[in-house]
Amino acid sequence: MLSVDLSHAIPFLSLPYEEALRPRLSKAAQWLDAGGGKGADFIGWVHLPRDYDREEFARIERASQRIRQDSQALVVIGIGGSYLGARGVIECLASPNYNLKKKTTPNVYFIGNGLSSDALREVAELVEDADFSVNVISKSGTTTEPAVAFRFFRALLEKKYGPDGAARRIYATTDRARGALKSLSDAQGYETFVVPDDVGGRYSVLTAVGLLPIAVAGIDIRALMCGAEEMMQCCSARDFSNPAWQYAAIRSELYRQGKKIELLACFEPSFRFMAEWWKQLYGESEGKENRGIFPASVDFTADLHSMGQYIQQGERTLLETVVRFGPSEHQMVVPFDESDGDGLNFLAGKPLSFLNDQAMDGTLLAHVEGGVPNVIIRADARDARSLGQLIYFFEYACGLSGYLLGVNPFDQPGVEAYKKNMFALLGKPGYEELGEQLRARLGR
Amino acid sequence: MLSVDLSHAIPFLSLPYEEALRPRLSKAAQWLDAGGGKGADFIGWVHLPRDYDREEFARIERASQRIRQDSQALVVIGIGGSYLGARGVIECLASPNYNLKKKTTPNVYFIGNGLSSDALREVAELVEDADFSVNVISKSGTTTEPAVAFRFFRALLEKKYGPDGAARRIYATTDRARGALKSLSDAQGYETFVVPDDVGGRYSVLTAVGLLPIAVAGIDIRALMCGAEEMMQCCSARDFSNPAWQYAAIRSELYRQGKKIELLACFEPSFRFMAEWWKQLYGESEGKENRGIFPASVDFTADLHSMGQYIQQGERTLLETVVRFGPSEHQMVVPFDESDGDGLNFLAGKPLSFLNDQAMDGTLLAHVEGGVPNVIIRADARDARSLGQLIYFFEYACGLSGYLLGVNPFDQPGVEAYKKNMFALLGKPGYEELGEQLRARLGR
Repeated sequence: MLSVDLSHAIPFLSLPYEEALRPRLSKAAQWLDAGGGKGADFIGWVHLPRDYDREEFARIERASQRIRQDSQALVVIGIGGSYLGARGVIECLASPNYNLKKKTTPNVYFIGNGLSSDALREVAELVEDADFSVNVISKSGTTTEPAVAFRFFRALLEKKYGPDGAARRIYATTDRARGALKSLSDAQGYETFVVPDDVGGRYSVLTAVGLLPIAVAGIDIRALMCGAEEMMQCCSARDFSNPAWQYAAIRSELYRQGKKIELLACFEPSFRFMAEWWKQLYGESEGKENRGIFPASVDFTADLHSMGQYIQQGERTLLETVVRFGPSEHQMVVPFDESDGDGLNFLAGKPLSFLNDQAMDGTLLAHVEGGVPNVIIRADARDARSLGQLIYFFEYACGLSGYLLGVNPFDQPGVEAYKKNMFALLGKPGYEELGEQLRARLGR
Repeated sequence: MLSVDLSHAIPFLSLPYEEALRPRLSKAAQWLDAGGGKGADFIGWVHLPRDYDREEFARIERASQRIRQDSQALVVIGIGGSYLGARGVIECLASPNYNLKKKTTPNVYFIGNGLSSDALREVAELVEDADFSVNVISKSGTTTEPAVAFRFFRALLEKKYGPDGAARRIYATTDRARGALKSLSDAQGYETFVVPDDVGGRYSVLTAVGLLPIAVAGIDIRALMCGAEEMMQCCSARDFSNPAWQYAAIRSELYRQGKKIELLACFEPSFRFMAEWWKQLYGESEGKENRGIFPASVDFTADLHSMGQYIQQGERTLLETVVRFGPSEHQMVVPFDESDGDGLNFLAGKPLSFLNDQAMDGTLLAHVEGGVPNVIIRADARDARSLGQLIYFFEYACGLSGYLLGVNPFDQPGVEAYKKNMFALLGKPGYEELGEQLRARLGR
């Protein structure tokens, strides 16, 4: 079971902090469990691992089997919370090289998460000669990036399979009842899955939003949900035995004492996009009202040879959280080399996990000595069940953290600013006045 | 030609700063050009685009042709500066999906940049059925991560092609005369290329370190060097017409006024690993003596839906630098959709570059309004020549920045800390005493 180790972080705090935070954490936990706090319309994820829709879950499994049978590729169209969770889980459990590997499951391509013409064209070329399906994920159906990409790939599918054939290959994850994508899906007969009203994008990976692409990649989504439910049980404890209480409390206290940047580190490179998911989760939940820890991430040991210098000796405003997975089963062993020119024969015969573990401990002690508090999050293994635990743990601790900070952990008012400007500059009907103001600011 | 636009950053500075910084920049430029400053043994990169070894360059081109003829894959073994530059350039110019694309050039796999057993095994599996070559990049040949990976892949090659066949497929980029890898290469007859003594790892992408893998991927390394030389000319100006002076000065001044984090942003997802390269360059050069801007990066528009909230409304300690490339030649156009459910028909027929440009401007104005100064770096196109300019520009501005900050921009004393600890915990002969101390600190 996932656990948090604070023994290399607590020494940075001169005063006891748990008692001071207990009443606030109790309140925050109550708000998460039963509402009453800010953003209470968006706490549907809290009991999701227990209450999720079994009928829809079975449909997700059936759809994933159908896609695995009739498609060599799945094009997943979505941005933000409709993108990062699925990509994170697939890369973490099935590898960042998933699409390159020999396998019986389809390739999975993520698009509609930006406006690069080259990126769009490339995915179109990659699926050109393949049988493929599309999973378009958008609550409203009108978000610019996924909507534009969906226009392309829908047209490609219709050209390839005709309108009816295309409709059978399009899976829409969208609002239960309303919106442009839901209307289109009903009119065209796409199979639809639900983005629940009470689960915001960044908390949605364990809904159909994340589960369908993850299942297509051959990952055991039952184990993922099972791990999440185990952690839901742990997180229901209203005391410091709860790992989410431990994590939320220490980062709150370290932030108060000037630790302004949190680095999420992992010693498995396949974790890169889980860290991106985490950055959205925490950055978007806490970064408001001119407050919040700035979330960043590093890929160790690689980045010990890039960001390592800064971490060791730069401004002392860092806090580091390290996700440690138990060793994988298939361990490579350091080969013996007669000449021993590199001087590594003292390691010959050792599994790489032994080296990686010593690197973790060596880094821990070095960074702590350099003035960087280290929080360790231990997960049993890099498998679906442990990752389900980790996801729920981070979500629950994030809800607590936002409430401790005094903000609404479930809104994102700042995200509208660029969209509004973009619409105005694109000439969207109704934005004419703003467009003129912005062009003036740009000196046009 | 690359240019810097400070018009959305200067308004954040209440006082003129150029005159104040001019004498220091003059001194820093003199140190870079002729030595005399800290770390002066490592300024070989400054005149490299003019003075590089033409004979070796021709050998790199020939080696890359040989690899392209006899190999379906190149395994590149290196960490830090022996990894990020080549990966950055290849992903930026040939795509993050380079290995998935149909092409006439070999796949390129990067390994030896960590200690994950799964990552190592995976690359071994990916090249199992392919003819492949190895480029091992290490000044000393004893850095743990690449040395361990090289033991594996050397053994794989020898098993596949015999000792002599393997030796013809191993290319070592290492010290000119000394070190474990140089000795082994001479003994075994590997072709070798040089990591110059006066060029540190993070400034080495335009030496054989970066050039060989980049050339194997089919990228025009002459155009890359040509762009770098053009920028070298620009950067020799000792006044504020020099884009590197502009960039170094404004970030120095913004840092002085409390902007502690610099976000490097790009609206092309293929730029992700160029940003990683940039993070090493700046983080490792400036992050010392408890000082330095913390470098972070974002991939827009994707990350406007994750880090966008923090950027717009989190702590106001951010500075944003946006790399803008001119539009690519092959533009996808937004398709017309009769039903117009998503309401995007007002964009039908527009190239995606138009949308992306308006997203850039809309984001710029939103972030500036939110209190985030924006520096724009304009590059003509996402091609080898422009990227050569950009690389040299960032390097030269980084040298200036380090000197303005008062640190040695060319050392990395903090990187040793984790290595020493790791050796001790691994039981390396000679580290016994430290090992005991560390185990005690770990409570073992």
